[in-house]
Amino acid sequence: MKKTFCFLLIASILEIGMAVSSAAQTPPFCLMPYPKELTAGEGHLAVDSAFSVVLQGAKSERLQRYARRFLERLSARTGIEFDQPALSTADNFQAALTVQWQEEAQLHPGMDESYDLRITPQSAEIRAATDVGAMRGLETLIQLLDAGPEGYFFPAVTIHDEPRFTWRGLLIDVARHFMPPEVIRRNLDAMAAVKLNVLHLHLTDDQGFRIESKRFPRLHQFGSDGQYFTQEQMRELILYAADRGIRVVPEFDVPGHCTSWLVGYPELGSQPGPYQIEPEWGIKYPVLNVADEHVYRFLDQFFGEMAALFPDPYFHIGGDEVEHKRGHVAEHWNNNPQIQSFKKKHGIQTNGELQAYFNRRIYRILQRHGKTMVGWDEILRPDMPKDIVIQSWQGAESMVAAAKNGYRSILSSGYYLDLNLPASLHYLNDPLADNPNLTPEEISRILGGEACMWSEFVGPENIDSRIWPRLAAVAERLWSPADIRDVDEMYRRLEVIGQELEEHGVTHEKNYGMMLRRLARYRDPSALKTLVDVLEPVKYYRRNQLRKQTRFTPLSRVVDAARPDAPVARHFREAVDRFLRDSGQERATIEKSIRARLQQWKENHQRLLPLFGYSPVLREVQGLSQDLARVAEIGLQALQWLDSGKTAPKAWQDQSLRVLEEASAPRGQAELIVLEGIKKLVLAAAGSQPQ
Amino acid sequence: MKKTFCFLLIASILEIGMAVSSAAQTPPFCLMPYPKELTAGEGHLAVDSAFSVVLQGAKSERLQRYARRFLERLSARTGIEFDQPALSTADNFQAALTVQWQEEAQLHPGMDESYDLRITPQSAEIRAATDVGAMRGLETLIQLLDAGPEGYFFPAVTIHDEPRFTWRGLLIDVARHFMPPEVIRRNLDAMAAVKLNVLHLHLTDDQGFRIESKRFPRLHQFGSDGQYFTQEQMRELILYAADRGIRVVPEFDVPGHCTSWLVGYPELGSQPGPYQIEPEWGIKYPVLNVADEHVYRFLDQFFGEMAALFPDPYFHIGGDEVEHKRGHVAEHWNNNPQIQSFKKKHGIQTNGELQAYFNRRIYRILQRHGKTMVGWDEILRPDMPKDIVIQSWQGAESMVAAAKNGYRSILSSGYYLDLNLPASLHYLNDPLADNPNLTPEEISRILGGEACMWSEFVGPENIDSRIWPRLAAVAERLWSPADIRDVDEMYRRLEVIGQELEEHGVTHEKNYGMMLRRLARYRDPSALKTLVDVLEPVKYYRRNQLRKQTRFTPLSRVVDAARPDAPVARHFREAVDRFLRDSGQERATIEKSIRARLQQWKENHQRLLPLFGYSPVLREVQGLSQDLARVAEIGLQALQWLDSGKTAPKAWQDQSLRVLEEASAPRGQAELIVLEGIKKLVLAAAGSQPQ
Repeated sequence: MKKTFCFLLIASILEIGMAVSSAAQTPPFCLMPYPKELTAGEGHLAVDSAFSVVLQGAKSERLQRYARRFLERLSARTGIEFDQPALSTADNFQAALTVQWQEEAQLHPGMDESYDLRITPQSAEIRAATDVGAMRGLETLIQLLDAGPEGYFFPAVTIHDEPRFTWRGLLIDVARHFMPPEVIRRNLDAMAAVKLNVLHLHLTDDQGFRIESKRFPRLHQFGSDGQYFTQEQMRELILYAADRGIRVVPEFDVPGHCTSWLVGYPELGSQPGPYQIEPEWGIKYPVLNVADEHVYRFLDQFFGEMAALFPDPYFHIGGDEVEHKRGHVAEHWNNNPQIQSFKKKHGIQTNGELQAYFNRRIYRILQRHGKTMVGWDEILRPDMPKDIVIQSWQGAESMVAAAKNGYRSILSSGYYLDLNLPASLHYLNDPLADNPNLTPEEISRILGGEACMWSEFVGPENIDSRIWPRLAAVAERLWSPADIRDVDEMYRRLEVIGQELEEHGVTHEKNYGMMLRRLARYRDPSALKTLVDVLEPVKYYRRNQLRKQTRFTPLSRVVDAARPDAPVARHFREAVDRFLRDSGQERATIEKSIRARLQQWKENHQRLLPLFGYSPVLREVQGLSQDLARVAEIGLQALQWLDSGKTAPKAWQDQSLRVLEEASAPRGQAELIVLEGIKKLVLAAAGSQPQ
Repeated sequence: MKKTFCFLLIASILEIGMAVSSAAQTPPFCLMPYPKELTAGEGHLAVDSAFSVVLQGAKSERLQRYARRFLERLSARTGIEFDQPALSTADNFQAALTVQWQEEAQLHPGMDESYDLRITPQSAEIRAATDVGAMRGLETLIQLLDAGPEGYFFPAVTIHDEPRFTWRGLLIDVARHFMPPEVIRRNLDAMAAVKLNVLHLHLTDDQGFRIESKRFPRLHQFGSDGQYFTQEQMRELILYAADRGIRVVPEFDVPGHCTSWLVGYPELGSQPGPYQIEPEWGIKYPVLNVADEHVYRFLDQFFGEMAALFPDPYFHIGGDEVEHKRGHVAEHWNNNPQIQSFKKKHGIQTNGELQAYFNRRIYRILQRHGKTMVGWDEILRPDMPKDIVIQSWQGAESMVAAAKNGYRSILSSGYYLDLNLPASLHYLNDPLADNPNLTPEEISRILGGEACMWSEFVGPENIDSRIWPRLAAVAERLWSPADIRDVDEMYRRLEVIGQELEEHGVTHEKNYGMMLRRLARYRDPSALKTLVDVLEPVKYYRRNQLRKQTRFTPLSRVVDAARPDAPVARHFREAVDRFLRDSGQERATIEKSIRARLQQWKENHQRLLPLFGYSPVLREVQGLSQDLARVAEIGLQALQWLDSGKTAPKAWQDQSLRVLEEASAPRGQAELIVLEGIKKLVLAAAGSQPQ
């Protein structure tokens, strides 16, 4: 049997190939998340026009639709037209793939998503307790699709698989920048492909109120600039998610982050208003008047309406950054006499206690509407009931404290996709890894995690490029055994999986070229691509510090096209590491590819220069282009020293490091991302050790 | 003032540049459709953060939304964040751009779409009779956006513009393959950008019934495989279109092409059934029983429901291919005793007369519902009322006959985008050009034209690549003066406009790369791209003749990724023509670029070879890859002969032409598209004249 592995495939995609080490220690199959138990078999099951599927189990119309889409995807990937009918539920239907399950799952955390997959040269079989488990098995199966001279096939394999955590989610912030239904749909499809099961919609914030309320229509009418989900659209999205075994958890952030509510209903605020939709990012003043009974009546009715719209048993009330040290919410409360007398009357000392009072009231409202309350770290106060769920953005410590105090929790700290950090960092961020002192019971309270895609700096055009492919690495962390954590191996699989996901319409790959064409004003974008391939947006919260942005700032500049975890830069770094390590035969090949790349970068600035005159939007990165040429020249010099067998002089090293240091300054909120590799070459040439 | 022209930009996008002649005789501005009257001025109006728009005219909320989107697009193209507010309707608001109009247009053929656009270094002004005219002016304005070292600007210019034809449409066949709302939306946006004003939806056919009927729900429930527009979705799409000054004309094809109706309502058919959704393409047997009064009652109620849903005054009833020579409809009628006795009773001799009887009945039904009937050529019979509109797929002759008989008509013959013909052919297809004998009154009856995108061989993933950019050339034919018909000049503008259209989300460019990545199974797709860049799908109706396809055939093969009017092939052809014509200084440069291209093609097969083993779906084009190498080698030999100053021997010529002939055979329903240029080189080398 010919088994094709996915490592070694990717480096060749670079215009100038980098030889990749073939010393893969871990999983040979290009699966992500990698299954819990996998045993490779002998031979393979052919996929040809006779391939078919039979479904045997409890009633599940969604699994029928899922299986039909599975066949369509298989057909699209292979070009094979299957004999009809290729899908059946008839008992006596002879099919290549049999899918069996016991019951239709109720979507909730803790639902059974396990499955067994067995492929022999004769047939394939998926057995699962629930239809959702069967869906997860189908995703593993399609990732196993392989081919060779004899055609397409599934390799013989036996898999038992189940998730490590039961809550594996993605938060999409549709408040800061609205994301229309098609953005949500394509991301739901891609989420299902990597076995995620929660979509958390951050529906309201200072900058927008994004869901239609029939009870209080001024919420969306005045708070959204016309950009919101109708209830009909939301119902369709919830069904679309459920069809893929994904829950939709809505978030209505209270009592802070609520400016958009107050535009239409200023009477809910702690100051008289008027309010307008907040154009800027950051923590803002407006806050609900938690001393006013009218606010509770309003929330009771509004949450009641939303509790009916969103069937999930969990309901997120935000609750973050009300007392935050950078915030000013206190001011609106402190300057409100009603609040002051309310605090006095009830013996409430601090604003933190005041928020806790509010949370207990909200807890009871949600309880009446049959919902379990979820909130950010800040809602956790000693006297809160134990059945709430804490979502931790503040860090593992906060999450562990929650678990130790008897609360269930979800980790988001370390999974913020908007910070433009490498996938490896999120990948190694394990909800349990640093907490060896937890009891099994405490561990069981850590439900899982959610990656967060806050949307201050993304629009529908580029949001996918921040989510994918990195989210697949988070999905693996939350599904697969803890000891699957080889970063190199993860990246090799991630690059293939990232491309496979394109079949769902996610645009992380294809919108890159489109944005570059527009930036080049429809001239040849290849020199621009060479530059942007080695740029990344600045990390953490530096972007807003470098240049104040608002909701009117276009998201079409170089920094918006540039992608986190730039593959070209990573491949270069890896190649340098191998080159410096390797003293064998491959060294010359690797050096040649490094030299070609450096040469390309060195010459690129001259190639790109005319475009700066032609497309003014590019000028903010002209310095980066120039610096890329300069540092590439230094890299070439370093190679020359290394080849010469002589040690480069200290003065050259110091001068080179200075240039590298200068080149590290961000411009246009983007930064050069190949400096580390070149620095290593410089230090090696000068006989220095890396610091 | 620095004025940047759009020619000369594009050749550089080729990996190996082809020098393009700078002898542009015609329009210097990259506008499409080109305006009726244009006078270039001196200087330019800067576009910077102070740019703003004021709207002055009758109430038009849609124009406010249009202007807001205009500003967003301007912001996205330039990276400029405009000072807020950048859009106002206040009388005293000082803005860079003033838009004035008299009234909100009623959408109908003949609505006033004219506008005047005047740009000076101080300000810009659009004046129009209607808000729709103002929209057209905004599209011209954004196409004028230019830039130089001093920043972004609009060049000073004075334009008076109005359309030559009042009906400028695109038909999308959503029946053969369903196209979800987002496909329609992005195409509506792109249509508006090139000033088209009719979207014709072919909603029903043998292979699918794509609109929800609340009155007769079995129509969509049994006839659509679950893929249809809800009425709510359709209402949203109609509003979306109206917001862009585009009418939506629905088509319900009767009495033939109706299998999907009969799956749920077999009693409407001329044979008892049962019927199933037709999986194959072509003309099918099923036909409505036009002798049964129940059918007319049904159509009265159903058309009544649809007449209320679709506000446009025009209503398309299809009517094609009932008696068609390749059809078999007659058989279902001929074998139905009720129909036979009905014909006898009413003295109806032929099935053609029978259809005419049906059409007169339908005409009266539509009249009652306030609609004007539109149909294909076949509905035209001498006794039809003069207020129907004929859409001509059979050709200009048929259209002229209609006009001479007093009928209004729309040309679609020559605008079939699904036939994979070059844009030039559609561009030169003028509704009036070949009909000098028409009186002005007859000419006024020729309302315009509609490009047709039939969907047997396209899905949501690649339909845009058949529509765009070629539809922009049709749009120019139908809007601009007849004497704007320079093909080279059209192509130069088309390539820029095609890329600009990407801002609307149309996927003609970006899905190409995605489909190639999948075909390459996520390995390096560059060699595959080199091949597919010079392939086109076979032309006319040859595709189905070469391999029977059904609605289950995947649309992800090489032929589906390959695009009509392949730019690389066209550039090569143009370069060869220039090379053979030119005896001056440029000749050597052009030859060098031709040689580089041929060399690349010659070597490509070896580069691509491993992929055929790895990705079985590619094997059907392996012969084309091999032939590309062979013909490239011949091209290189021809250059050698031409350089040598000697004449190539006849035997070499004959042998070479034989190879070229062999290479012209389609494989995988695709064909090599560079043979013509190489043939010219061969003939020139052998001193022969092109045939």
